[in-house]
Amino acid sequence: MADDIRMAIIGHGFMGHEHEKMLSDFPGITLTGFADKDPEQLVDVRDGLKRYGSNEELLADPSVDTVIIAANNNQHHDLVIQAARAGKHVICEKPAAMSLRELDEMEAVCKGCGVTFTVHQQRRFDPDFRIAKAVCDSGTLGNVYAIKNQLYGFNGTMHDWHVFASEGGGMLYDWGVHLLDQVCWMFPGAKLRSVFADIRSVINKEVDDYFQIMLRFDNGVTTTVELGTYYLADKADEKWFERHWFVAGDRGSAYVDGFEPTGKIVRTTHLLTNVPGHRTMTAAGPTRSFGPAPEGTLVTEPLPTVNTCHRNYFEHYVRARHGKEKLFVKIPEVRRVLRLMDAIRESGRTGKSIDFE
Amino acid sequence: MADDIRMAIIGHGFMGHEHEKMLSDFPGITLTGFADKDPEQLVDVRDGLKRYGSNEELLADPSVDTVIIAANNNQHHDLVIQAARAGKHVICEKPAAMSLRELDEMEAVCKGCGVTFTVHQQRRFDPDFRIAKAVCDSGTLGNVYAIKNQLYGFNGTMHDWHVFASEGGGMLYDWGVHLLDQVCWMFPGAKLRSVFADIRSVINKEVDDYFQIMLRFDNGVTTTVELGTYYLADKADEKWFERHWFVAGDRGSAYVDGFEPTGKIVRTTHLLTNVPGHRTMTAAGPTRSFGPAPEGTLVTEPLPTVNTCHRNYFEHYVRARHGKEKLFVKIPEVRRVLRLMDAIRESGRTGKSIDFE
Repeated sequence: MADDIRMAIIGHGFMGHEHEKMLSDFPGITLTGFADKDPEQLVDVRDGLKRYGSNEELLADPSVDTVIIAANNNQHHDLVIQAARAGKHVICEKPAAMSLRELDEMEAVCKGCGVTFTVHQQRRFDPDFRIAKAVCDSGTLGNVYAIKNQLYGFNGTMHDWHVFASEGGGMLYDWGVHLLDQVCWMFPGAKLRSVFADIRSVINKEVDDYFQIMLRFDNGVTTTVELGTYYLADKADEKWFERHWFVAGDRGSAYVDGFEPTGKIVRTTHLLTNVPGHRTMTAAGPTRSFGPAPEGTLVTEPLPTVNTCHRNYFEHYVRARHGKEKLFVKIPEVRRVLRLMDAIRESGRTGKSIDFE
Repeated sequence: MADDIRMAIIGHGFMGHEHEKMLSDFPGITLTGFADKDPEQLVDVRDGLKRYGSNEELLADPSVDTVIIAANNNQHHDLVIQAARAGKHVICEKPAAMSLRELDEMEAVCKGCGVTFTVHQQRRFDPDFRIAKAVCDSGTLGNVYAIKNQLYGFNGTMHDWHVFASEGGGMLYDWGVHLLDQVCWMFPGAKLRSVFADIRSVINKEVDDYFQIMLRFDNGVTTTVELGTYYLADKADEKWFERHWFVAGDRGSAYVDGFEPTGKIVRTTHLLTNVPGHRTMTAAGPTRSFGPAPEGTLVTEPLPTVNTCHRNYFEHYVRARHGKEKLFVKIPEVRRVLRLMDAIRESGRTGKSIDFE
């Protein structure tokens, strides 16, 4: 179409292929083709798309107005700047940059060149996340005090260049930037007061592959973000090796499990009446406060339905580029999460919490 | 028996009843009877046991050489000192004291009076805890990096005087002192470097009823202790409203659920071979690192068996009193956990981590 955004993509690796699938037939977007510094990566580019001989050739193509940077993380800085200087609007894969200094330079150059700059944080449209957010936003759980956002794997090691620190590898950069973006974007306006993190290289030598992070927000919510690549259980029913959200409020809890999310809102029919002497004996001895809930005590409700998917990212992008809305992923938001990852690394290294906002 | 320890108990509330059940027929112990400042609490004292008219009458009984203090937490300090001054050996319910100053005074008076002083931390013998400890001690999981010790309930409010701050109520004092004692006692010699805690009064007005605490030990293990009295899910198979241990090492994981514990050791048959381009598509989009484990990838082993129960506490006590071993629960251990609870409260209040050891 005449007013289509005309995109080319630098990098035909994992995410390059994903963009190819989504954008080869996307309303408002014409995908022109790919460049990759490894020519072998281009052999399976779909027919009808260009295989540029170099990034320079791609950036010199006057039929391209927008470039997606889908190269390894350590190349984002230079490629975004190069694309901006070629006059192209830029969408960069996450994490946008390896440091705040890099990101600030990228943003300054894009501004100076008069091109738009945003980041592919498409997991803001993850249904599991949006369900957890919808539960919070609805107020149905009363005052929410704790949220968990967890993801476990069995592979141990990581893929491709993600095992190399110099390429921007590690799970904090790979998935952490999504999980943190989600919990930061969940409550607009809430200040993140302090952060405490444990980060490990359990299986991988160079890069982090386990983290647990506690985030204390000033709206009264403490969020725990945990990811392990080698964190094993055989609980098939729970989709253990997928996503887990738990939202705890003073009027109920909600759990959301899996990429194709399932779960419930759970409440009790009544709170304990403070009767002395009432006991539940368990195998471990007496406890009156813990033990199986008597039949009928728990009541459940279905989770809210959401209708989001990763396509929404580019739908919003097209609308923004036509002036119908602002860019969905804003650089100050990206900067905040990048600064948070710095704080997380510092907390992990020092064993101390970091005052954040 | 002639060389029996002759015990009397101050307080015939919940724990007083539990002690009555266990000690009415216990080798090496003769239970003489109970005192309680509320005479109505004594109406169901078993036949054959004395119902003392006052604490003073109990402490003046020359046939009693040992007193268990099972009154409300805020009475422990005065009663332990009173019992010691009456020349009685003392076992105090947990938490031993409401402050370090109280505990130090109690210990000094007991020393000065030449009586032994210990605390009823019987949950060191909880089978679920001992299984988790046995898994760690065996080395079967390689280097352990993370341990979780969790307990969830549905009641919301608490029992009896536990809802009153002035009586020493709240879950940190009630269960927290056990959960923390367990994780501190798990690795003798390991220093606890730093602590970060979130503590809430979700349902209860005066006292804490939710906490999540991250503890970074210098042996490389980070332990998370979490308890909620109103933390709801309807996952019956997992014994949700009971105990949960998770132990993650670089050669496998273990989970232990329930007071009558079940669980497994879980490993993988192989780690990922770093092959570019291998993908798992999920409902939320592409992910190669997370998703269901292919058939045959996970292998499980049974948990080690342990043979401990709360009776062991008093079996050890009898042996210690006869000089065959040292007291199982030592005051410096109790002091460390009490100091830790102070650090946890401070972290919860300030939102900052506390350097501990």
